[in-house]
Amino acid sequence: MADIDILVSEVGPRDGLQSIKALMPTEAKKAWIDAEAAAGVREIEVGSFVPAKLLPQLADTAEIVAHARAIPGLTVAVLVPNARGAEAAIAAGAHKLTLPLSVSETHSLANLRRTHAQVLDEARAIADMIRALPEAQRPHFEGSLSTVFGCTLEGAIPDAQVARLAEALMAAGCDEVGLSDTTGYADPAAVKRLIGLVRGVAGDAALTGIHLHNTRGLGLANALMALECGLTTLDASLGGLGGCPFAPGASGNIVTEDLVFMLEAMGLRTGIDIDALVAVRSILAAALPGEALYGFVPDAGLPKGWRTQA
Amino acid sequence: MADIDILVSEVGPRDGLQSIKALMPTEAKKAWIDAEAAAGVREIEVGSFVPAKLLPQLADTAEIVAHARAIPGLTVAVLVPNARGAEAAIAAGAHKLTLPLSVSETHSLANLRRTHAQVLDEARAIADMIRALPEAQRPHFEGSLSTVFGCTLEGAIPDAQVARLAEALMAAGCDEVGLSDTTGYADPAAVKRLIGLVRGVAGDAALTGIHLHNTRGLGLANALMALECGLTTLDASLGGLGGCPFAPGASGNIVTEDLVFMLEAMGLRTGIDIDALVAVRSILAAALPGEALYGFVPDAGLPKGWRTQA
Repeated sequence: MADIDILVSEVGPRDGLQSIKALMPTEAKKAWIDAEAAAGVREIEVGSFVPAKLLPQLADTAEIVAHARAIPGLTVAVLVPNARGAEAAIAAGAHKLTLPLSVSETHSLANLRRTHAQVLDEARAIADMIRALPEAQRPHFEGSLSTVFGCTLEGAIPDAQVARLAEALMAAGCDEVGLSDTTGYADPAAVKRLIGLVRGVAGDAALTGIHLHNTRGLGLANALMALECGLTTLDASLGGLGGCPFAPGASGNIVTEDLVFMLEAMGLRTGIDIDALVAVRSILAAALPGEALYGFVPDAGLPKGWRTQA
Repeated sequence: MADIDILVSEVGPRDGLQSIKALMPTEAKKAWIDAEAAAGVREIEVGSFVPAKLLPQLADTAEIVAHARAIPGLTVAVLVPNARGAEAAIAAGAHKLTLPLSVSETHSLANLRRTHAQVLDEARAIADMIRALPEAQRPHFEGSLSTVFGCTLEGAIPDAQVARLAEALMAAGCDEVGLSDTTGYADPAAVKRLIGLVRGVAGDAALTGIHLHNTRGLGLANALMALECGLTTLDASLGGLGGCPFAPGASGNIVTEDLVFMLEAMGLRTGIDIDALVAVRSILAAALPGEALYGFVPDAGLPKGWRTQA
């Protein structure tokens, strides 16, 4: 990151596409990833190694990983639900694996059909698998604390539970833990509090990134607080793709275009050219007809005299 | 403000209504103001004393002020473009007058047909008029630096010009200066920089409030930075009424409902009940058929287990 200040990690090809019904053709996914990388995006979560019958939208993830790996300088990230998925991700050559652990055990059981103890077993198995690889081939391994800001089933999550699970993920062998606002419940004060809490138990170096949704409109305010706390990786989705199933009109992930605008306007280098980034929307619009694309900057345009940070 | 931490100042009846073509019936305006005050809103900018032929939407401002003054505990604010407007505002009994001074002189000439020197003359005349009143009848007088974060005509505004005009407004006799992101160009770094700049020349006590738009989606992030800098008054508009004429789908002012949600979620007391506030939207929907109402929280609902700060 010598030439950028903040890493914007595009998660649309995974989180966006898994949230909509339409299937995006593999060639369109490749064109999307190529175009975003060409616009300067350095990390893209390109898919998820889940059974194709559960998420047919992401059934071509291995092919997409192989394609994306050929793009110089791009970190190819994938989500893995378990050790079996991690095995496939490693075989495909992914650079970064993210294993979600839902801090709400009710949500974990409903969503992954696994207890916390079972997910931590998977984390240990994945870490062992990675350690067995030659050092140069080892992917980065993140454990992501999902529903960490609250759960639609359980409501608020006790801080002690967050701390315990962050510690457990690191003990299981994760390189890093992440915070994920799965439900759009985060607010800036909670972002600050949980960053402090997790760093307190896992160490400052073990928390660099956050995954925010914009369900209640606070996505960029939460991102700003994460920046103020020193985080350097922010997930976002082009066009806010995926929306929010229980909030018509509300985007799901924070919108990449708007996030990059905020960062660059603040003088933080992302390496991303906004005009080129906005142009990538045409690929989504063509491949996913009728799917809503969100974003304020694409609608309003850039301020007069705008310049991307060199 | 003993029982609240942050003053949310509703500007929809002025900034929202002046930005749309439809005329809201006077009785609907009164019902809107009554309902927002009942939801706990403590300050409402109810109109503007401009010639009725320029803004027929606000021609009934004197009647609205008289009505709103009868609501216990409500600060009744109005915009005044000049000394003549201030005279009418004082006669009507407004508690707070805001005179906009566009920091971009090009915009000032295009919008108010006045140079900076002419606007400062009006400020002096208004301050003299207020000083001539018995102390108990004197309204609070704010000079608002509009286009301070940049201008659609001039682009970026030099910091030195902002500082000079902030100082000039205070010297002219304003009680306070405000910052107004008329064009939606603000970003959190600029918010922080300009707050420091204006406080440096005008004193900390002379800058407590900010007027933000959400044209490029950064409204709440900018509001968060203003909070971090210690500002205590934030303008917002119910349903983001007014939209943004050059950005379809983009709200104009930040949305009151979403702002109150952010503040209360952060543990800051606004005195406002969100459910009651959201219910006020039905008055707007009925009186302004076809007008877009924005807001994420009204769509997504409150998080499970939500409680407004006592």
